Amino acid sequence: MNTRFLDACNQRPTDAVPIWMMRQAGRYMPEYRALREKYSILEMIKTPELAVEVTLQPANAFDIDAAIIFADILPPLEGMGLKLTFEKGVGPIIHNPIRTPADIAALAQPDPRESLPFTLEAIKMTRQELAGRIPLIGFSGAPFTLASYAIEGGSSRNYILAKSLMYREPQAWHSLMEKLSTLVGEYLFAQAEAGAQVLQMFDSWVGALSPADYREYVLPHSARAIARAKEAGVPVIHFGTNTSGMLPLIKEAGGDVIGVDWRIEMTEARKILGTDVAMQGNLDPVTLFAPSDVLKKRAAAIIDQMRGHPGFIFNLGHGLLKETPTGIVAELVDFVHEYSSRET
Amino acid sequence: MNTRFLDACNQRPTDAVPIWMMRQAGRYMPEYRALREKYSILEMIKTPELAVEVTLQPANAFDIDAAIIFADILPPLEGMGLKLTFEKGVGPIIHNPIRTPADIAALAQPDPRESLPFTLEAIKMTRQELAGRIPLIGFSGAPFTLASYAIEGGSSRNYILAKSLMYREPQAWHSLMEKLSTLVGEYLFAQAEAGAQVLQMFDSWVGALSPADYREYVLPHSARAIARAKEAGVPVIHFGTNTSGMLPLIKEAGGDVIGVDWRIEMTEARKILGTDVAMQGNLDPVTLFAPSDVLKKRAAAIIDQMRGHPGFIFNLGHGLLKETPTGIVAELVDFVHEYSSRET
Repeated sequence: MNTRFLDACNQRPTDAVPIWMMRQAGRYMPEYRALREKYSILEMIKTPELAVEVTLQPANAFDIDAAIIFADILPPLEGMGLKLTFEKGVGPIIHNPIRTPADIAALAQPDPRESLPFTLEAIKMTRQELAGRIPLIGFSGAPFTLASYAIEGGSSRNYILAKSLMYREPQAWHSLMEKLSTLVGEYLFAQAEAGAQVLQMFDSWVGALSPADYREYVLPHSARAIARAKEAGVPVIHFGTNTSGMLPLIKEAGGDVIGVDWRIEMTEARKILGTDVAMQGNLDPVTLFAPSDVLKKRAAAIIDQMRGHPGFIFNLGHGLLKETPTGIVAELVDFVHEYSSRET
Repeated sequence: MNTRFLDACNQRPTDAVPIWMMRQAGRYMPEYRALREKYSILEMIKTPELAVEVTLQPANAFDIDAAIIFADILPPLEGMGLKLTFEKGVGPIIHNPIRTPADIAALAQPDPRESLPFTLEAIKMTRQELAGRIPLIGFSGAPFTLASYAIEGGSSRNYILAKSLMYREPQAWHSLMEKLSTLVGEYLFAQAEAGAQVLQMFDSWVGALSPADYREYVLPHSARAIARAKEAGVPVIHFGTNTSGMLPLIKEAGGDVIGVDWRIEMTEARKILGTDVAMQGNLDPVTLFAPSDVLKKRAAAIIDQMRGHPGFIFNLGHGLLKETPTGIVAELVDFVHEYSSRET
């Protein structure tokens, strides 16, 4: 079994730097696009056999050190009573977004074992298929990112609706975040029970907040979700973007591994985070559109910055883009292994 | 004359913290919306009398410490040969975006005195109207932000086209950035000649870059533009967003004042930037949608963090949003003056 990824999560030395990539299963892969011609995203997520197939696509195509279950951060909201569709060219839409304290009071508190059985089943099946070859990651959106989607009803530029509710109805906001952190914590715990060996909490939108707002309105809820997930006894990766100015707060909220995006040098992030936590990051996903030599120069710089720090997982700073040229991904994976295992 | 703003730019003590707000003239003001019913944005920018009227609207409505000339960052691209329109609900569109080295070679190198006479004339007229009451700020987009617009053709989520050109055609990229930095430097210089007492360079999109990419592809060009602007002998504000992880590089590129967005505490930003440069920031524009007590709590925290540092200008971390409730802006301006002049 390849234990590089688990070893790095636990800050143990590895023979080479482990690499996996957010959204490593996705539209940049021809195998994925072929399936998407036949099935919608939600069909693929809710049919365990299809979710397993997509999860394994990058694990079969590349020498990556971890698989991540194919799912999406938004289906957990369906069990709370929100109506979700994915619209072509637009992305996810919540058709009955939350706008008032009454909307929040009316939200259900689902048991993820009942509301998301398909993903838990897909995790069990994927573990069997992987047969210990590489570890499997389970994941969930974080309370703030889920709350923002639920309130905004889709993508947002300025988060005016979400932040306005937060500022104007703090009691209702905290009640929403408690429901969400309970759901996120239980869902992550249930994924570990089902066989996920590492858990990642995605707070993709948290960088919209000031550190003061994060501390007051978000941190306690993220901390609660992570604490519950940790009871499963597996490492937790805490990921966000645009967090360069509040990494200490992200660390305070919890996680064995802190995800860092490309907007800060890993050396700087390490200085801020200290050495008692592992780190994951941080190549700009658009660097995969560069010529091979430029890509390798940037990847090598990240590896060099983290040499001597055993708790390091190579990843992109955010998900692989659907326009990413196929072919370059395999090259990056092999380069990270080869370059990081070289004697310096 | 109110010299608070100029004093703060020069790190001299002030009786109260000066405040102005990016996009302080704009759609959140009824006076502005009334004009916009009759004229397009480009008509308003290109008719000096209208640009003066809009510039003065917030200066008449609020007790702000600086006016900023009403203009936009994109008209300078027209003189290079790019076709610009503003589409309702979409924003600015470049109809013949730059995609190849040949496109870049074909770009003109306009003299801003000839290609942007309307803004220079509006600056002269506004200075007369203001009669020394408050200082007037001139501004330009920064080379990277202008290059991104010119290449992407409009707003962008991931900057794939701009960064791909940067990585794949570095010579052409640097040639584009040289043309743009010449234009930006000359335009800022010409605005100071026309009467602007402070200059701000907006690198609104620079936070899309990694520090390594900023250093290699952008910093020398931003530095060149700022150095030329500085020859006019007035203070320069260097503004960006999502720059928390590369503030030292922003400072290295130049500017007497560094703009900071709300994604980092001012205390932290000050530690990173040192005390030999003034700072401007950093309230989240969405905080203006909060109840008055929450808004004041956040504004007070920023002021308290900067107490004892004379070089501080209160501003938002980015522009005022068009949905901002009218009324709250006056309250913020008065609060900043009153609270910052209190004995602690």
